[in-house]
Amino acid sequence: MKGFVFHGPGQASWQDVPDPAVKDPTDAVVRVGAVTICGTDLHILRGDVPEVPLGTVLGHEAVGEIVEVGSDVLTVRPGDRVLISCITSCGRCRFCRGGSYGQCRGGGGWILGHLIDGTQAEYVRVPHADLSVHPLPAAVRSEDAVLLADIFPTAYEVGVLNGHVRPGDTVAIVGAGPIGLAAVATARLFSPERIISIDLVAARLEAARRLGADAVADVREAPGQLVADLTDGLGADVVMEAVGVPDSFELCTRMVRPGGHVANIGVHGKPVTLHLEDLWIRNVTITTGLVDTRSTPTLLRMTAAGRLPTGQLVTHTFPLKQMEEAYDVFSQAAETGALKVVLGGERHAEVAVPRTDREGG
Amino acid sequence: MKGFVFHGPGQASWQDVPDPAVKDPTDAVVRVGAVTICGTDLHILRGDVPEVPLGTVLGHEAVGEIVEVGSDVLTVRPGDRVLISCITSCGRCRFCRGGSYGQCRGGGGWILGHLIDGTQAEYVRVPHADLSVHPLPAAVRSEDAVLLADIFPTAYEVGVLNGHVRPGDTVAIVGAGPIGLAAVATARLFSPERIISIDLVAARLEAARRLGADAVADVREAPGQLVADLTDGLGADVVMEAVGVPDSFELCTRMVRPGGHVANIGVHGKPVTLHLEDLWIRNVTITTGLVDTRSTPTLLRMTAAGRLPTGQLVTHTFPLKQMEEAYDVFSQAAETGALKVVLGGERHAEVAVPRTDREGG
Repeated sequence: MKGFVFHGPGQASWQDVPDPAVKDPTDAVVRVGAVTICGTDLHILRGDVPEVPLGTVLGHEAVGEIVEVGSDVLTVRPGDRVLISCITSCGRCRFCRGGSYGQCRGGGGWILGHLIDGTQAEYVRVPHADLSVHPLPAAVRSEDAVLLADIFPTAYEVGVLNGHVRPGDTVAIVGAGPIGLAAVATARLFSPERIISIDLVAARLEAARRLGADAVADVREAPGQLVADLTDGLGADVVMEAVGVPDSFELCTRMVRPGGHVANIGVHGKPVTLHLEDLWIRNVTITTGLVDTRSTPTLLRMTAAGRLPTGQLVTHTFPLKQMEEAYDVFSQAAETGALKVVLGGERHAEVAVPRTDREGG
Repeated sequence: MKGFVFHGPGQASWQDVPDPAVKDPTDAVVRVGAVTICGTDLHILRGDVPEVPLGTVLGHEAVGEIVEVGSDVLTVRPGDRVLISCITSCGRCRFCRGGSYGQCRGGGGWILGHLIDGTQAEYVRVPHADLSVHPLPAAVRSEDAVLLADIFPTAYEVGVLNGHVRPGDTVAIVGAGPIGLAAVATARLFSPERIISIDLVAARLEAARRLGADAVADVREAPGQLVADLTDGLGADVVMEAVGVPDSFELCTRMVRPGGHVANIGVHGKPVTLHLEDLWIRNVTITTGLVDTRSTPTLLRMTAAGRLPTGQLVTHTFPLKQMEEAYDVFSQAAETGALKVVLGGERHAEVAVPRTDREGG
């Protein structure tokens, strides 16, 4: 089969790779029907995530059809259409028992496209399938569902829930890429007084307005002053970092009110300066987090009911085999206007080739 | 009267100052019966708290007797014995209404010995007296009560409550000065599995054991390894910073488990490096805080019932007029073994001189 393989910083290609097969009795093999590219994949390509082994197939978000299951898989069967979660969960370790699937110590966590081969391929092996895929209602399109593999639960859990957005709050969200936009959309669920979206790119700020931001600001034009002006000088109740660079994080800690929350969602490759000489006295709470995806079933029900605008984030679609072109469009988002790119999906449904004969197949 | 006056970094003296008087109808004037020195006072003397005006009487912790009240003070009367909280609360602003007295926007917050004259004097004016002093049960000694003005509520609220200490937790506390020791004593209230106290000074670690630490570690001898060994390599559920220097804060962020809490209690004068390149994925929560003292009534009841070992932290007592000697002993704690020094109190009860005639007196 074909897959998109990481060969080191700046080097990756869509190429022949061995077909995956069930290795452990809790595995499933899924034929990929729709897959997307994440900002985290770009971090990997920039060398920010050094633990990714050379030769790994990237990708941790997909929708597809089960084609094979191991003998211990109880809840899905070949032919089932499923969402593959970016987080794999053993279900048995201390962390999974507490719902912290992202921190799974039983061989799960964020492993797809990180520590093992991922979803940017024609087929993918999903360990611990019972807890790591979600059967999809027929009414939910693949192009909507694939955004629930990572970005919507990430924005919701790591941004909105960790940040404790409450009715009446002023919420500032730095970064209007896909995660920041999903944070705008899911912050709205708690009826804040206002959401302020901050970014460099005018088109992204327009998208933020469409998804529910009440005000937008160019990050180069004193966004902290806007937030102060809107809050009697106090600062925002909740500030989310959805970029992953030191300047952005430090801006967040300057915009939060005393007693407020800074929820870091961004993937960072460098340390940041934390101004404890100012912050020690201000009762701030700073959270970090990898998504647990424990909200995925809820978000899936809301999507099926038309209550989440997931598909609005999809700007470009491609056949699966145009993975390299899709990466080019996604990584040059400032020029192309890309938010989420989806490969496969309803518009390119017939792209996956039939499986070839393979070991164990 | 006499008071201990800040004249700039490294410069302060016990000297004549004007007698305080009621200025606003919500003020009380208190004759100081017992007062202590806080690590924060040493930070001020080192120049770490630049907003303190030259000429300010320091001190924000005391027990005393009301000698005069303004016309709007309803709940205390001359002759009442009271605890003066380190936090003054207007009771009316948005923050006070939410119990965040430390962030009071109505003229309170931490103002005593910070923005206005404080308690290290024979008399002190306490604004917003109704909410800023606590009547003392006769059974509670001044030497015990004075530790409830700041360090016990600070350790409890900013360390134990912000850190979400829960039964069964592993709790690491960096710093075994008075605040770190009060954190040991109040963390015990939640029945953690173990408390690990970390410091440079053997005598302080012994005090930590007496107050309930299950294990102690010299900060120079790989305390993170001890914590890892005790927790199957995971790290502590809760880590508290009770020192106020960058190395100590960074140690805390290395010792916390995925999903754990770092509660900063220390007063910091410099920025710290936050290793978001490691922490973004670990679901940590970092809190800072100035105490609100909303727990003070509870802690006072527990002290009256003999349930809090506050007095165990008092190592030295002095007459009030020996303020400069007391500062010397407290600031050279590594040599003197000082934890908390109390001036006045039961052992030196008669030190305060009668009030002289003064304006409005």
